[in-house]
Amino acid sequence: MEASDIFFKLSLMLVFAIIGFAASKRLKQPVSVGIIIMGIVLGPSILGLADYDDIVAVIAQLGSIVLLFIAGLNSNIREIYTKRNLYVAFWGAVMPVAGGFAVGKLFGYDIMTSIFIGTTLTATCLGITSAVLKEIGKIRTETAKAMIGAAVIDDILSLSILSIVIGIPNHTSPTSIILKLLLVLAFVLSMIFLGEKLLTRLVDRFNDIAIRHAPRLTFVFGLAIVFLFSYLAQLLGMAPIIGAFLAGVSLAGSRSINSLMAGSEYFEVVFTSIFFISIGIVVELGAFVELFWFIIVLTVVAVLTKVLGSGIPAYRMGFKPRDALIVGVGMAPRGEVAFIIALNGMLIGLISKDVYSAVVFMSFLTTVITLVFLKMLYKSGSKEHDGHEVDFIDLRLNR
Amino acid sequence: MEASDIFFKLSLMLVFAIIGFAASKRLKQPVSVGIIIMGIVLGPSILGLADYDDIVAVIAQLGSIVLLFIAGLNSNIREIYTKRNLYVAFWGAVMPVAGGFAVGKLFGYDIMTSIFIGTTLTATCLGITSAVLKEIGKIRTETAKAMIGAAVIDDILSLSILSIVIGIPNHTSPTSIILKLLLVLAFVLSMIFLGEKLLTRLVDRFNDIAIRHAPRLTFVFGLAIVFLFSYLAQLLGMAPIIGAFLAGVSLAGSRSINSLMAGSEYFEVVFTSIFFISIGIVVELGAFVELFWFIIVLTVVAVLTKVLGSGIPAYRMGFKPRDALIVGVGMAPRGEVAFIIALNGMLIGLISKDVYSAVVFMSFLTTVITLVFLKMLYKSGSKEHDGHEVDFIDLRLNR
Repeated sequence: MEASDIFFKLSLMLVFAIIGFAASKRLKQPVSVGIIIMGIVLGPSILGLADYDDIVAVIAQLGSIVLLFIAGLNSNIREIYTKRNLYVAFWGAVMPVAGGFAVGKLFGYDIMTSIFIGTTLTATCLGITSAVLKEIGKIRTETAKAMIGAAVIDDILSLSILSIVIGIPNHTSPTSIILKLLLVLAFVLSMIFLGEKLLTRLVDRFNDIAIRHAPRLTFVFGLAIVFLFSYLAQLLGMAPIIGAFLAGVSLAGSRSINSLMAGSEYFEVVFTSIFFISIGIVVELGAFVELFWFIIVLTVVAVLTKVLGSGIPAYRMGFKPRDALIVGVGMAPRGEVAFIIALNGMLIGLISKDVYSAVVFMSFLTTVITLVFLKMLYKSGSKEHDGHEVDFIDLRLNR
Repeated sequence: MEASDIFFKLSLMLVFAIIGFAASKRLKQPVSVGIIIMGIVLGPSILGLADYDDIVAVIAQLGSIVLLFIAGLNSNIREIYTKRNLYVAFWGAVMPVAGGFAVGKLFGYDIMTSIFIGTTLTATCLGITSAVLKEIGKIRTETAKAMIGAAVIDDILSLSILSIVIGIPNHTSPTSIILKLLLVLAFVLSMIFLGEKLLTRLVDRFNDIAIRHAPRLTFVFGLAIVFLFSYLAQLLGMAPIIGAFLAGVSLAGSRSINSLMAGSEYFEVVFTSIFFISIGIVVELGAFVELFWFIIVLTVVAVLTKVLGSGIPAYRMGFKPRDALIVGVGMAPRGEVAFIIALNGMLIGLISKDVYSAVVFMSFLTTVITLVFLKMLYKSGSKEHDGHEVDFIDLRLNR
């Protein structure tokens, strides 16, 4: 019975995820970091109780689909697409790509791997930043709004870059890269703007009927749409998660958002646990020693390119120097999207397991660095502490 | 990319499930029947758009785990284990096993297959019965209570029989069958009575802490327990669903039941859709023609053994003849548990795909027959119609 240990493995993964969650809360660290560390403990590097097999891969992939659907649902396009946010996000994406590429080349990786390393540096994870901002009561400030808006745009940019990068190995001529770029742009824009009207209307009409008979059915319908979009994205040569994200973005303005969210949150809490645990399971601890200097340099570049890439535009858009620095530092941590991109790259063979592990370590380090610097920057204005406010889900929703 | 069509397939399955759901409501038929028919349409027999592959199998198995966990959560042991219910359930389980075995032998199947056919006839599905009872406002009567109680005991009995049957091919001596029987009994009783105290206390304590920080975490913890029990059951040579059911039964009296139910219901609505669709996908329409007489005889025996097996004990326990007949007819439909048992049997090679399909057809027919007879029996007392009361989830919960 080859499937006999799947239940044991799932049970272990969930229990370890819960421990990671509890430990993170106690130590006031991002939940994702705690769960991933428990994944490393569970995986071949330490306890060897679980490995990354086909079934875990499917569940983790479904997890990333749900994660990005929810990220999309939380992206209110009209509030987010301000000139300021676009500006902060654009340079905060371009500079890390360039920086990551340079680090890759510096350490002797080939062009494709180096581009991919750059891609993993694009997306910001605001988990730790929003936790700090909440802690000190600054979550409703203009600084916070700029970071949240830019982080969402960063997600879209990083996923677009991923789409293009995934396609490159098969279409090496510049013309086909440009075609691919146009295709991605057309898909993203048509989904966001045309899809929005059509989809929202469709789902809302469905919800009007379903709500009387079976309110949970709207969530099933939403999932059907998410899977369809994931399939369409894949059909066009992009990562399926991009479709899931765009489905979320399209439905963000729907009247049925509550029906969609309630179910997604339960799916998220389970699939995210398994997803982060599996992110950890794949990590090779040995890579930390082997690629030590690569990880250190990559982390420094990751932090600096965001501090400058997002901080300078913020300053030029009218923020005071200290607030601009806060935006830059706050945008530095990498998280879920970086993991998802790295995992995708490893699975299709663009980066090795070592480089994947290095990206995960880099992500940990950016989080710690941000925590220290952000607290230093806010030191003078620190208020009463309220740890209870930050919820498992909350951390994601306030990205 | 072999996984590329999984998203398309999942999307199709969910959309077809929704159509099946809507059509069932319109035609006032059980939701499971409607979804399974859509599964047959989607499968190789008609459209050929989906087949039963490994990924669908894993999702369907997770679906049956969640289904039986919820069935367990809804089984309040203390209310259910009355002498009357036990009596109605016992003969309503023994007679179908004997009848199914006889039909199997009559049509030339070997002993193991015949015993297995008997096993699939054990469990009652109260979906259609409770829909009829609700429609005519009789859901709170003693008749209804007896049926619900006996149906829950039937579930436990049928799963116990399944456990024993699964073990037989490897342990053919009478001693080892008795050992197996004792093992199953010990597992079931220890889980229900010892497990209840321990587990309930553990989960409630967990919930007390989790509810402040992350209320959805209790559900994750519940799932971890469900998977652990499924694994334990499998380790003891039983079907994993038995462990899931017992985990639910153990936790039925927990103070945290709301935290556990809220999440389960969202999982149920999605996994059940996929589960019923996949039940349909596996069905071979050709079997209906090939095994026509087998299906007819099996259906007649299935109905008669419940009408007599549950009806006579009900009469002897003090019900009026007409009410006893209602209990017997009401217990006749077979559903989810029969499908799950049949699917398990097919996957481990105890029954062929044809016999599996025959069991699914038998189940459809028992539902239709019950609907007609029950309405005839209640004809005189029929009241105003209220279709909205019966919900997708409701149909399961009132089994």
